[in-house]
Order: sequence, then C-alpha cells, then structure tokens
Amino acid sequence: MTVKVGINGLGTIGRRVARAITLQSDMKLVGAVKTRPDYTALQAAAAGIPLYTPSQEEAEAFDKAGIRVEGTLQDLLAKVDVIVDATPGGVGERYKGIYEEAGVRQIFQGGEKARVAEASFSTLCNYSEALGLKSLRVVSCNTTGLLRLICTLHRSMGVKRVQAVLIRRAADPREVKKGPINSINLNPPTTPSHHALDVKTVLPWLEITTSAVVVPTTLMHVHHVTLELEKRASARDVIEALAGAPRIMLIDTGVTGIRGTAQLMDAARHARPAGDLPELVVFEDSIHVEENRVTLFQAVHQESIVVPENIDAIRAATRLVEDPWESVTRTDESLGLTKRLF
Amino acid sequence: MTVKVGINGLGTIGRRVARAITLQSDMKLVGAVKTRPDYTALQAAAAGIPLYTPSQEEAEAFDKAGIRVEGTLQDLLAKVDVIVDATPGGVGERYKGIYEEAGVRQIFQGGEKARVAEASFSTLCNYSEALGLKSLRVVSCNTTGLLRLICTLHRSMGVKRVQAVLIRRAADPREVKKGPINSINLNPPTTPSHHALDVKTVLPWLEITTSAVVVPTTLMHVHHVTLELEKRASARDVIEALAGAPRIMLIDTGVTGIRGTAQLMDAARHARPAGDLPELVVFEDSIHVEENRVTLFQAVHQESIVVPENIDAIRAATRLVEDPWESVTRTDESLGLTKRLF
Repeated sequence: MTVKVGINGLGTIGRRVARAITLQSDMKLVGAVKTRPDYTALQAAAAGIPLYTPSQEEAEAFDKAGIRVEGTLQDLLAKVDVIVDATPGGVGERYKGIYEEAGVRQIFQGGEKARVAEASFSTLCNYSEALGLKSLRVVSCNTTGLLRLICTLHRSMGVKRVQAVLIRRAADPREVKKGPINSINLNPPTTPSHHALDVKTVLPWLEITTSAVVVPTTLMHVHHVTLELEKRASARDVIEALAGAPRIMLIDTGVTGIRGTAQLMDAARHARPAGDLPELVVFEDSIHVEENRVTLFQAVHQESIVVPENIDAIRAATRLVEDPWESVTRTDESLGLTKRLF
Repeated sequence: MTVKVGINGLGTIGRRVARAITLQSDMKLVGAVKTRPDYTALQAAAAGIPLYTPSQEEAEAFDKAGIRVEGTLQDLLAKVDVIVDATPGGVGERYKGIYEEAGVRQIFQGGEKARVAEASFSTLCNYSEALGLKSLRVVSCNTTGLLRLICTLHRSMGVKRVQAVLIRRAADPREVKKGPINSINLNPPTTPSHHALDVKTVLPWLEITTSAVVVPTTLMHVHHVTLELEKRASARDVIEALAGAPRIMLIDTGVTGIRGTAQLMDAARHARPAGDLPELVVFEDSIHVEENRVTLFQAVHQESIVVPENIDAIRAATRLVEDPWESVTRTDESLGLTKRLF
C-alpha cells in the first residue's frame, strides 16, 4: 500500500519532509504548495516536485519566473490521503478548516497550538496512541529532542522529574532578519518556558520545568538536562540505554575533538545530505550521575530533528504501520540515520 | 590610616581596581606595573597613575613611546603595603616569590590556582576569616557571582545544594583573538566545571555541581542557578532576601523591557563609568520556586564584578577594617554601587 502525501509549505521543515517522503517505499509525494517563486521553489521544481499555489492568485508570479504550477492547494488536497502542514508557526491553524473539508488526514508542526490536532506526537513516546487519528501535531525541535531522551530513559529506568536549561540558537541559517548579534537573551525570562508545556502535551504525567536563553548562533540548540530517575543508576547504565535507542547519537568529545555545535555541524556537512543531523546528539562524557540525578548536555539540529517524526506521523495517522518500531526502522533506514557519524 | 597599594598588571581587572583604589579614602595607589606601552598604559599615564615595568628591560619601549616610568616592580614593592596581582591567569604564581621576599601582602585573582594564597576570598562569605592573612585570592567573576547569591540566601534561608548552568561570554570586549563566531561550545564537556571547585575553595561544605557552555558574545555571563533550600520558601521570600543584600541588583524584565545582556549593558553605559556593572544582576521575574527548590537567571559582568571584592580583600588582609559590613559600605559608596539602575 502506498499513501499519497501533499505538503503545504517548503520552508525549513517542509522541504526536508518533502525529500524524506520521496525516500519512502510506502509513500508518494503528490505535490507541494509554495506561496512565492523563490530559490526554494526553483530547487523543488528542479528536483521534480509538482508545485501548487495556495490560490490562483499566486500562480502568475510563478509563470513569470518560468516555474510550472499544477494547480491550487484545493486541487492538491483532492489527490492526497495526507497533508503535511509546514506553513509558518500559527498559520497552519488557519488552513485547518480547508483540510477538514477536503477530508484528508493532517500532520501539523510544533509551531501550532496543541489544540490544532487530536494529539501531539513524538514517535518514541506515543506512536501507538496516535494510530488512526485524523490529525497529529509533531512537537517542535526542542521538544522532540527532550522527548527522545526522556522516553528512552523512562523505558529502561523510569524518569520522575526533569529540569532542562535550553541554550537556543537565535535563528536558522537561512533567516537573515532576526536574532541578537551580541547578547544572551532570556527567552522567556520566566519559568517554565513553553517547552515544558509542550512536553506535557505528550507526557501529561511528567513533572518538568524548562528555562531558556537565546544566543547569537544559527547552527543547533544545546540543552542541559537534569533527570531524576526512579532509582539510582550509573553513568554506564545511562550510556547503555542511549546507545541501544534509535535516533540518539552519542558523541565522545575526547575521542572526536568535537566540543560544540560548529564542529558537529562541520562533521555532518561531510557525511550527510544538506549537512543535516536528525539524530539527537548526546555528549557522552557530559553524562554525570549523583544519586538518582542524571545531568547531561545534548544538541538539537533544529532544521532536521523533526523530519523522522513527521514520516512516522504519516504512518501512524493512516495506520500504514501498526508497530512503532517497524515505522522507526523504515524511516531511519531510508533517511540514513546512524548511531555514529564516523 | 592609609594603606599603600601597588598593582601588577593593568588589564581588564587591573585598571578597574586601580581606578577603584583612587576612590578609597583609606587607600593610596602608589603605582602600577605595565609590560608594554600600549593604549592602556597611555590612559593610565594620562590619569596620573605612576607606572613601573617588571624589570629594567621593558623601560626602553616606554621611553620611546614618551611614557614616564618610575622604576621596576622591585622599586614599587619597596613602597607598598599590599600588591594586587592582576597579571594574566597563572602568571601571578610566578611572581609569588618576589612578593614574599619584599614582605608585602598579596591579593591574587581567580585565574590563579587556589594554592597561591592562604585563602580564597569573597566578601559576603568569608571576610572575617580573611582578616590579617598575608595573601588572599579573590575568586573569579563567575564564582563571585555564584557566591554572592549563595551566601546571601544561605544567611536568611539556608542553602543545602546548588546546581548551576553557566552560559559564558566567549571573550571580553577588548579581546580580539578568541572565542567561537557561530557555535555553542561545551566548556568543559564534563561536569563539574571548575566553577564548582572554585566555589568550594570558599564554601567547602556546599554540595554543588556546575556545567558550562561558551557562546558567541562578549558582554556578560548568564547563569541558570538551582538552589535547594533547607526549608520551603516563597518567591517573595527570595526576592526580599536579595533586595536587602548589598551588591545584588534585581531587574524586572517586564517593567524595564530588559530581556538580555545587550540591553543591560546598554543601560549601564548610560549610568556608570566605563559602562561597568559590578553588581550581580538577578532577573526578578525569573525567580521560580517549587517545593524547596529555587531556580533563577542571573547575569555577571565579567570585567567588573570582582572589583569591589578586591578592595575589600585589601582591607581584610591589612586589618584596615574588622567588620565586613563596614568594608562593604565604604567600597560600595565609593564605587557608586546601587540596588537599581534607574
């Protein structure tokens, strides 16, 4: 069986999900909606992705730019089983009614409010509960990073309480108009930041607080996470649990010489398409245990970490695959996710 | 009584301590040692500070630059009661023997190993224990920031355990050759960073872990601190304890619109000499309490925070003032420290 998928929006997430869909043997990318004929539209057209516009109105500009348009969003919706909404944060909710009317299943991104979908989604935490739901919301990059870690460790050793400090990149590499140049900004000043609330959309029982700052860099977020386990564990136990889990990559700073996000992204550029690193990177030698408290540093590639979860969300919503681990295997093999970069 | 003070080194800390000494009614700045006749030497000469060189060798370059030199470090040591060593980190220890031989009291900086002095020093924690000691080491900027907070809260509510995540500026504004441009670096990757060990040089009984990253900014450090209190307290209790303490400034981000270090330093530039902010800045609305755990964000101006403690260290080592609060009052009034910027 093959699921027919459309994408609304080809920004940071949309074009990566588009590429990922073309790599799945059980999915077909029918087309993608673009608002303007900019360089990402040119690249998509060159890659053979059929392009659509939100309405007839935007088509003229594409004509002038020499980019073929297949029709409108409405036309695309008539041809697909699932639409992945990758419009800017908050915009997806405005399209909700149109998607509903067309009777397609919907995958939203973490920039939307949780109410946009029947459930918020993160593969390693709640794939099975998402089976057959009409609409899912893949939580944001930071939340995806936190949830991969928490659910992996919860499975093997039980997590009682989490506290995380997020050191966030100011903007994505392609964003040229925002972010501090020389400042550490509290974002927000108050605790908890929205990330704790977002984690609770998937794990409502978890006691978690998050605090966040924004710093002048574009490459990745870094989290300092403190996890209180149900019982004592050694650093070795934690490393083994993470080493055995999908989508988590352990990096030893001593062996690799990788001390931060710049070197990590440099290594990824020479190993991966578009230099992406969809794995959650946990710095192995940062894992520190005192009694039942584990602290560690992890890095989140904000541009790509949610891509595997979007692919799984399509399978869960359409019941294409019932077993979460089967979906994880298909997704990770097709995208070339690995446990090591070297 | 007036204590005669010399300074070895006019870098980031040295020239600020030099200026601070000239503002004390119970101290006299006899002179300062400079290695090279660069712009900080020219500024010191213009300010009327008598200049000395480490040895006769360096004097010629000053002659050529038209800067008058009074003699060598040895000459200066013969005229002072106290030498403040503000040479680069690790260099002070090499001068230790020369200072000892000259029979002067010594104030070292936090860049030196703790063994360089009879005690590590932080006014609000251990002024009284430092009275009359021959050598003191004023702990580093980050440690001073942590200690002001910890000792203030410990006095009124008892602190059992501390965990801090330090988001460190990469370099000082005048440093042009170091620091990441676009990266978040683990510095170090392992826990604890040296800051926890440095705090323990002053508070050996405290259970503390610290973790640190370095980010591409030059203005201030930001700390996320978690304190476990001996008993439950409200956010209001914490605010009152900090509001009543010297050298700690509360900033409300909502009222002031100050969300980060850039706006904080911008405000300081329009209120203070050299734009310095020697107060520890605690973001009032970041104070968050759960059971007996307090979390908050604070900012540390790395260039100036240790200046008041250097002045107090001179008084403690020479027994010029026996009461810590009397020294704090003299120092803070002379330097214009305040509880508010506005």
